[in-house]
Amino acid sequence: MPAKPYELYYWPSIQGRGEFVRLLLEDAGAPYLDMARLPASKGGGVAAIMRFLGGGARVGLEPFGPPFLRHGQLVIAQTASILAWLAPRHGAVPRGETSRLRAHQLQLTITDLLAEVHDTHHPIAGSLYYEDQKPQAKLCAAHFRDERIPKYLDYFERVLEANGGRFLVGRQNSYVDLSAFQVVEGLRYAFPRALRRHTRKLTRLFALADRVAERPGIAAYLASERRLPFSEDGIFRQYPELDSPTGPKA
Amino acid sequence: MPAKPYELYYWPSIQGRGEFVRLLLEDAGAPYLDMARLPASKGGGVAAIMRFLGGGARVGLEPFGPPFLRHGQLVIAQTASILAWLAPRHGAVPRGETSRLRAHQLQLTITDLLAEVHDTHHPIAGSLYYEDQKPQAKLCAAHFRDERIPKYLDYFERVLEANGGRFLVGRQNSYVDLSAFQVVEGLRYAFPRALRRHTRKLTRLFALADRVAERPGIAAYLASERRLPFSEDGIFRQYPELDSPTGPKA
Repeated sequence: MPAKPYELYYWPSIQGRGEFVRLLLEDAGAPYLDMARLPASKGGGVAAIMRFLGGGARVGLEPFGPPFLRHGQLVIAQTASILAWLAPRHGAVPRGETSRLRAHQLQLTITDLLAEVHDTHHPIAGSLYYEDQKPQAKLCAAHFRDERIPKYLDYFERVLEANGGRFLVGRQNSYVDLSAFQVVEGLRYAFPRALRRHTRKLTRLFALADRVAERPGIAAYLASERRLPFSEDGIFRQYPELDSPTGPKA
Repeated sequence: MPAKPYELYYWPSIQGRGEFVRLLLEDAGAPYLDMARLPASKGGGVAAIMRFLGGGARVGLEPFGPPFLRHGQLVIAQTASILAWLAPRHGAVPRGETSRLRAHQLQLTITDLLAEVHDTHHPIAGSLYYEDQKPQAKLCAAHFRDERIPKYLDYFERVLEANGGRFLVGRQNSYVDLSAFQVVEGLRYAFPRALRRHTRKLTRLFALADRVAERPGIAAYLASERRLPFSEDGIFRQYPELDSPTGPKA
């Protein structure tokens, strides 16, 4: 346990990619400061993030963007790398190189999935509003729902099955299980109708998500004000027009 | 140096994400077999890849997709993770945790960039032909050229500058320098007119790419038949209609 709390830098009003780091820290009971959610009088707000970007700060390697984690002189950016660094310090990944590599590989696959989720509402440009790319988003989301959700979730279901059914890596809960929970929750929020079609097939993955939600640290976090709600500013957005059509499945 | 050559599994006809692994191995002079480029009679071809996917093979953790590297019982997928694992074995990253973390962070930023490059010609779906998403690709590519190329390349230029100008990490060539070379080459191939506009600003980054091309292992590789050409099946594609308009800059 570190003497000083970790400093997490992420946008203060969304779950986003920072949520995967928050879940690890909350589950582990590791002390951290969610810097941009502190009041500006305590050095918080978005300004806390911006000080590190664009070549301003001279602490470590400049991050390309949030989330990043500061611990003493170390500044680590990129969600999957932050998690890979934190996990062995908090028992959030089984011991040994093979387990760490497997967890990281799965987390990087989740990284790829998140980029595709973001593209469903921003297929043309992140700098445009959703409203300015709605027709393209509908096309993109249809392919994502019908092709990519099954491809990714079936993959995680197979990995779970090959590993005995309860954990994605090794014989204990790891940060990848927490991340899988977040992905299932996010997809359920953004594509509830599409996800319902998979309920019978993905029994292990959905059961894993249920178990994660009941872990003491996670349950307490989810019930707290620290857990921000999903919203239409985040990665997982509930735009009904991007979900599967209502009515009988085509 | 391993007794047995590494086995690299990647699509046999494109540079793609596998190229970043090839560059590390070639620069290091590490023996490897590019499995899918072996003749089918020697267990090669795309079938060599497919044996590991979809739950077929029971070796290690199933990869979500290529590239993946096999070494004995270890199978590692995800380009950035393969590179992070290989690099310390071949002096392709400076010693120490901080250097390894920095290199990995930069490589993961390149991973993000590659996903965006891919989206410029496939903004709607990877399963559709480019020809079926051309109008959307033109919109997406315009934003990528005008907003994202400067954002990413200015970032790498700043990182180079903050690190003394010659190397992205530490005081020696690392795999991230090789990856930066590949990104510059790829963007020059795909967006030659857009890249020319940046020549004066990105002097350090372009000089780095030139130095990498002259490294003995890289120069020999680039001159060999092992280096596949860029093509319109890869990530970096030369579609003139997606590049900046000809004529004076707007």
